[in-house]
Amino acid sequence: MSTDKCAKSSTGRLAILTPGLGAVSTTFMAGVIAARKGLELPIGSFTQMGKIPTNNGSNKEIPVKEVISLADLNNVVFGAWDIFTDNAYEAAKNAKVINKYLLETMKEDMQKIVPMKAVFDKKYIKNIDGVNKKEYANKYEAVELLRKDIREFIKDNGCDRAVVVWCASTEAYNPIEDVHKSMKAFENGLKNNDENISPSQMYAYAAILEGVPYVNGSPNVSVEIPAIQDLAQEMSVAIGGSDFKTGQTLMKTIIAPGLRKRLLGVEGWFSTNILGNRDGEVLDDPASFRSKEVSKGGVLSDIFDKENYPELYKDLYHKIRINYYPPRGDNKEGWDTIDIFGWLAEKMQIKVNFLCKDSILAAPIVLDLALLIDWAQRSNMKGVQEWLGFFLKAPLTNHAGGTAKNDLFYQYDKLEEIIRANSEGL
Amino acid sequence: MSTDKCAKSSTGRLAILTPGLGAVSTTFMAGVIAARKGLELPIGSFTQMGKIPTNNGSNKEIPVKEVISLADLNNVVFGAWDIFTDNAYEAAKNAKVINKYLLETMKEDMQKIVPMKAVFDKKYIKNIDGVNKKEYANKYEAVELLRKDIREFIKDNGCDRAVVVWCASTEAYNPIEDVHKSMKAFENGLKNNDENISPSQMYAYAAILEGVPYVNGSPNVSVEIPAIQDLAQEMSVAIGGSDFKTGQTLMKTIIAPGLRKRLLGVEGWFSTNILGNRDGEVLDDPASFRSKEVSKGGVLSDIFDKENYPELYKDLYHKIRINYYPPRGDNKEGWDTIDIFGWLAEKMQIKVNFLCKDSILAAPIVLDLALLIDWAQRSNMKGVQEWLGFFLKAPLTNHAGGTAKNDLFYQYDKLEEIIRANSEGL
Amino acid sequence: MSTDKCAKSSTGRLAILTPGLGAVSTTFMAGVIAARKGLELPIGSFTQMGKIPTNNGSNKEIPVKEVISLADLNNVVFGAWDIFTDNAYEAAKNAKVINKYLLETMKEDMQKIVPMKAVFDKKYIKNIDGVNKKEYANKYEAVELLRKDIREFIKDNGCDRAVVVWCASTEAYNPIEDVHKSMKAFENGLKNNDENISPSQMYAYAAILEGVPYVNGSPNVSVEIPAIQDLAQEMSVAIGGSDFKTGQTLMKTIIAPGLRKRLLGVEGWFSTNILGNRDGEVLDDPASFRSKEVSKGGVLSDIFDKENYPELYKDLYHKIRINYYPPRGDNKEGWDTIDIFGWLAEKMQIKVNFLCKDSILAAPIVLDLALLIDWAQRSNMKGVQEWLGFFLKAPLTNHAGGTAKNDLFYQYDKLEEIIRANSEGL
Amino acid sequence: MSTDKCAKSSTGRLAILTPGLGAVSTTFMAGVIAARKGLELPIGSFTQMGKIPTNNGSNKEIPVKEVISLADLNNVVFGAWDIFTDNAYEAAKNAKVINKYLLETMKEDMQKIVPMKAVFDKKYIKNIDGVNKKEYANKYEAVELLRKDIREFIKDNGCDRAVVVWCASTEAYNPIEDVHKSMKAFENGLKNNDENISPSQMYAYAAILEGVPYVNGSPNVSVEIPAIQDLAQEMSVAIGGSDFKTGQTLMKTIIAPGLRKRLLGVEGWFSTNILGNRDGEVLDDPASFRSKEVSKGGVLSDIFDKENYPELYKDLYHKIRINYYPPRGDNKEGWDTIDIFGWLAEKMQIKVNFLCKDSILAAPIVLDLALLIDWAQRSNMKGVQEWLGFFLKAPLTNHAGGTAKNDLFYQYDKLEEIIRANSEGL
Repeated sequence: MSTDKCAKSSTGRLAILTPGLGAVSTTFMAGVIAARKGLELPIGSFTQMGKIPTNNGSNKEIPVKEVISLADLNNVVFGAWDIFTDNAYEAAKNAKVINKYLLETMKEDMQKIVPMKAVFDKKYIKNIDGVNKKEYANKYEAVELLRKDIREFIKDNGCDRAVVVWCASTEAYNPIEDVHKSMKAFENGLKNNDENISPSQMYAYAAILEGVPYVNGSPNVSVEIPAIQDLAQEMSVAIGGSDFKTGQTLMKTIIAPGLRKRLLGVEGWFSTNILGNRDGEVLDDPASFRSKEVSKGGVLSDIFDKENYPELYKDLYHKIRINYYPPRGDNKEGWDTIDIFGWLAEKMQIKVNFLCKDSILAAPIVLDLALLIDWAQRSNMKGVQEWLGFFLKAPLTNHAGGTAKNDLFYQYDKLEEIIRANSEGL
Repeated sequence: MSTDKCAKSSTGRLAILTPGLGAVSTTFMAGVIAARKGLELPIGSFTQMGKIPTNNGSNKEIPVKEVISLADLNNVVFGAWDIFTDNAYEAAKNAKVINKYLLETMKEDMQKIVPMKAVFDKKYIKNIDGVNKKEYANKYEAVELLRKDIREFIKDNGCDRAVVVWCASTEAYNPIEDVHKSMKAFENGLKNNDENISPSQMYAYAAILEGVPYVNGSPNVSVEIPAIQDLAQEMSVAIGGSDFKTGQTLMKTIIAPGLRKRLLGVEGWFSTNILGNRDGEVLDDPASFRSKEVSKGGVLSDIFDKENYPELYKDLYHKIRINYYPPRGDNKEGWDTIDIFGWLAEKMQIKVNFLCKDSILAAPIVLDLALLIDWAQRSNMKGVQEWLGFFLKAPLTNHAGGTAKNDLFYQYDKLEEIIRANSEGL
Repeated sequence: MSTDKCAKSSTGRLAILTPGLGAVSTTFMAGVIAARKGLELPIGSFTQMGKIPTNNGSNKEIPVKEVISLADLNNVVFGAWDIFTDNAYEAAKNAKVINKYLLETMKEDMQKIVPMKAVFDKKYIKNIDGVNKKEYANKYEAVELLRKDIREFIKDNGCDRAVVVWCASTEAYNPIEDVHKSMKAFENGLKNNDENISPSQMYAYAAILEGVPYVNGSPNVSVEIPAIQDLAQEMSVAIGGSDFKTGQTLMKTIIAPGLRKRLLGVEGWFSTNILGNRDGEVLDDPASFRSKEVSKGGVLSDIFDKENYPELYKDLYHKIRINYYPPRGDNKEGWDTIDIFGWLAEKMQIKVNFLCKDSILAAPIVLDLALLIDWAQRSNMKGVQEWLGFFLKAPLTNHAGGTAKNDLFYQYDKLEEIIRANSEGL
Repeated sequence: MSTDKCAKSSTGRLAILTPGLGAVSTTFMAGVIAARKGLELPIGSFTQMGKIPTNNGSNKEIPVKEVISLADLNNVVFGAWDIFTDNAYEAAKNAKVINKYLLETMKEDMQKIVPMKAVFDKKYIKNIDGVNKKEYANKYEAVELLRKDIREFIKDNGCDRAVVVWCASTEAYNPIEDVHKSMKAFENGLKNNDENISPSQMYAYAAILEGVPYVNGSPNVSVEIPAIQDLAQEMSVAIGGSDFKTGQTLMKTIIAPGLRKRLLGVEGWFSTNILGNRDGEVLDDPASFRSKEVSKGGVLSDIFDKENYPELYKDLYHKIRINYYPPRGDNKEGWDTIDIFGWLAEKMQIKVNFLCKDSILAAPIVLDLALLIDWAQRSNMKGVQEWLGFFLKAPLTNHAGGTAKNDLFYQYDKLEEIIRANSEGL
């Protein structure tokens, strides 16, 4: 049996707090509850189902959760903020992701999860609105209210620590401005109600000030800004992001590395998506879509490296479309067509049609990011956790100007490496 | 600049001899000629287009052919055996893979490549037959005739060495029998005309006896048999195989590792193929298809490891169909539908439609295998070259009872590792 | 309001008897029960949802069931024969077509439908077997037992008439032999236990002798034989067949007429199917598949008429594959790729991927065929009802040597024509 | 042999004039030239390849061109207007639709077709511009210049009549305003340079004033306006439109009628298109796309009739996307996913992927519309020719407020009906 060399004990209760109590977070919560009850396995979760090969010659692999000291699912407590007052049962019912009969079996547990009032700003989310919102004189006060929520949640639920994972809608694209560039400027901005400070930035700032690790599951610019990264360093808090890598982008970062290894040329990659859930509705606003486009658009450029392989990739035309299409609900569908060329410049095509379920793919990632960033925090890793890139569409890098790696297999190697490095006896 | 630590000089002319002068081998030859003339780049070839990252912090990668001492394309000479008398120009014209106008520009070079008489046995290839066949009293004599062909080709073309790459049709399935189990039994079998000895085994045996490396590009049982592997060890000859990893299987060994890394369950993988070339015609014979089915069928079982991940893969149903469909000619088309499941046991589907070109994908692999096995031979690597698995559907392993790894990314890492290990200054 | 000119009254109870109590027939029965209870609409049923335009200038169309005098759903009674003893509730539960929670709401009604013992012959269905089988000295006696079943069912259930619709598995291919060519030969064959007489032929013969209309929903050779067609004429009984036109063939007879109208050339049509239900299991036996292949294979030849349009269709290569693939259960999937050519001989491709549900598409056809053949019988139409071709893959023709028309739109016009011809006031 | 009852003689030369000398018109011209030379058949053309069944009991069908008196291909002369000065050979070469080696064989013929100066207005086409443009004081003068072009072309080429078929880019969406509502208002508008009068309207007006039939092959609002329809009536000129029915919409109006006949419910139809030719570039401007969206968007609503079938179609969500994607050039690709439901409200999906060639599908339609409207004119049919709807995405109707029928099979029946009505002896 291997042992974790580094981390503080994982016993004690862990609060997992999510801004957003919608399709993704309720599916995450329901899945954890179902796993605790023994109803369903936590399929797709690296921390729960993953294993690591040993170097002892045996073919038998060791579960990740026996290698490092992760919080046990029985010690996890759920909390959330949302602009709607629906509890997790009602929100899950509306989202129609979970089989309704399965949902009934955990109605009681889910009903207990009632959202705290959210910090919301119409400027950043145009297509939806709700009533369960905090009131405050300025954004500084909003951050204070969020900090109070976190402290009280921990205390009221007998937790000894917490993590925050952003599971709310994609905010409008919000490029980095001066107010984001230093902690001082940001604090002034909070006090002056600077319009460039978005709700997701306030949640992140509040969490870090409380010493609570924060992960950004959407493509919003939040943990990306220097003010927050500096604060995380100063407070010795682990942060991660951005944007859960689920359907189409997941497939892209699986297939593209394979084409690259085979040195096939790529002249075009067209990706279209149809989805009918609230995420789709929000992304129907061009400003929110812009955030997504930036996060999704970058994933091919480091894999298809124009500098080293100009003959293969210099003309690559990458186009992404996201379409709100209500008949599908949460059942997203991706369709990609890839124009490649090979020997004698002959053209070929690959088409990938992914009939996926957005929240079903995101939920295990929420769990993994929550448990791994809690482990990182207990292991004294502070600031940006680049090795979490395996789970993310637009991985943060922890060196200035560094380029994120999007190759899923490279990312997996890095993830496994960190775990091995913190473990003895593998 | 890095330098090859190990290999003998690559100067001097290298004969690349292919049993089979059909779609694959003529496309390979035409592409090399086109690259020599500067008409087209050798897209898809690792030895020609591949690069290796350095450890010196630079983003600039170094071409593989600057890292190890590979034969130069200008020093390569082509030879072939075939049951038809068509020269390479005529064979390429029939195969309709190469643009006819491009083919005309290299007519003269291609016409010079005239096939030697082939060793053929109707028992192993039912659906086609030809006239350009050797006559011999027994299989031992056939091997001697092939050895003579090799020696004379080398001499007549001023070569100082050769490699043989099987590019002919898939033989009927031919399980390992006693006659294959030792060199002695095999030699007796040759003399007794044992019906279990197939032509591809005779080609391999002849090459190795001449000290010439041999690679099996089809799924036939040839270099797989102990008699041949033992001979290769004894003669210190490098061998490799089997079955070029091109269309559908290539995609499979790209996508499957990604699903595995993400711990998604897989309950079914249905693959169908349509193709209309001679390969398709041959595979329309159930016995030849059986060879293919065995080679293609195994690629998922090591990636989706039922032992370590029973909850995810224990019920995996993998079905492969190959259909002869003349309207397509060499333009193969693969269609896969993959039934996966995730969080809360929810089902999803991935469909992959690959409009590929069989010979276009195979040709650069012929070149890479030829040049790399020649390099291996000059570097004193003898017997099975397991690290060539990156190019092959059913990679040979060099330890008894070992299981081949089919994960394309694992295979690439091994390939790069061998190259780095034989190079200084990377 | 229009009125039916011809038919006898449709009041009184109608027994719908199905050889086979499996996925198709239980889905049919459950859907009728659900419609009677007002739970779900009978979507896909021409008799229940169809309408006919009027000639009075109004855009408002008139429901089919107001135009002709069809049996009311409340007057329908279900009966079945099967080799398994499962009642309709149990059989439906196994088939997993109907949502299990919906099925529970009609458990009581479904449980009442208990199969009569079947006439079964292992020669005709290889891959399954059961225990609920009749015993008899010879096939003549078997027919007598089936006649008795029909008479008793009608009496016990207070019906005044019945129809029989074959919903059982596809029998092995059974070409027409001498024994099938006359009523006399057939009766002798029954007495001599001629092995060329299949169970489906015995059911048809029994029904017709009872004056009960019969429809063949599978591709077996049954109502196709002269002996049965002659008997139907003599007994003045309406018959129809063969093979419900559901998934892939339905799409084919929709798309092909469109390509034909546009005078696009077609050089290939490749169709593959994956399905995992009992039907798939039976079709995994090559002899049963042969029946299906014949019924599915013919549908393009009258639409793509080589005689009149040789330049467009003379080289058409039509290939059909059916694959048993258990992960899908009843959720059939068809994938077609169509190779077309147009102006300047340029090639194009159409690909159609149909994620369908076999029994869901077949069930309304069972209902329509049952109600329409009952109406035909009451309207004194005897023998082959060619106008039912709209619902069938291999429509019977009522003139010797006639070629069936497979164009769905032509078939619909004929269907509507018959209804108009029998109605006043449209 | 049948005879045309009505039309004036088709002997004498016919000028076919196209605004636009781009991919569509050059492909049309090249195909006619190739047919005249016997190089390729005019596949896809109703007038050249189509046949009509007889009522004499024979299976042999009669060629359309033997039934009615169409202009012979040898009597056709091509002319065009374009904003670029490229002749038809150069334009075809740029468009890359025609195989370059085939194009060379007709270089001389194609080079002779040199565009006349075009009437162009940047307001209506944003994304391209050229130099070969007419100069004029006001739009009235522009119309006069176009009339002069037509008269001179006819005279210079020894023609005795002409037709004009709009083959140029899609203009920006241009709703009907007061200026379009009467001939008088329109003429005033021409003189006042009213900005709501688009170039396509000027071409149509000029042609009709010359007594020359006009067909609109794009979705622009041109022959749709009352001023032009009134003029056509007054001048006894035949007109037709709008928008050639080619790729995705063609498939839609083939498949939708089939689903409708089968009474399957449809809750969503998502259509996406990728194309890389000039048409795609123009449609990348939202105003031009709006024209297309209107023409493409309406085709389902009459087929899926919500009034008569509310249970099946009331919630139908129809979404269309067109994406400019340069890697494909003229090789358009459509991808549709259709969400249907059936018996027991079960959901199913149909996906259609059409790898088509835009101009290859449009070219035979240009020919058919030109020859048929010339025939209509000679047969004294004046005003809107509704029966040409078979070829068009948004068919004009000849009664005020009438709804066009988009069902391809209905349209074909109407086309055949008109031809039969004008012919004797069928």
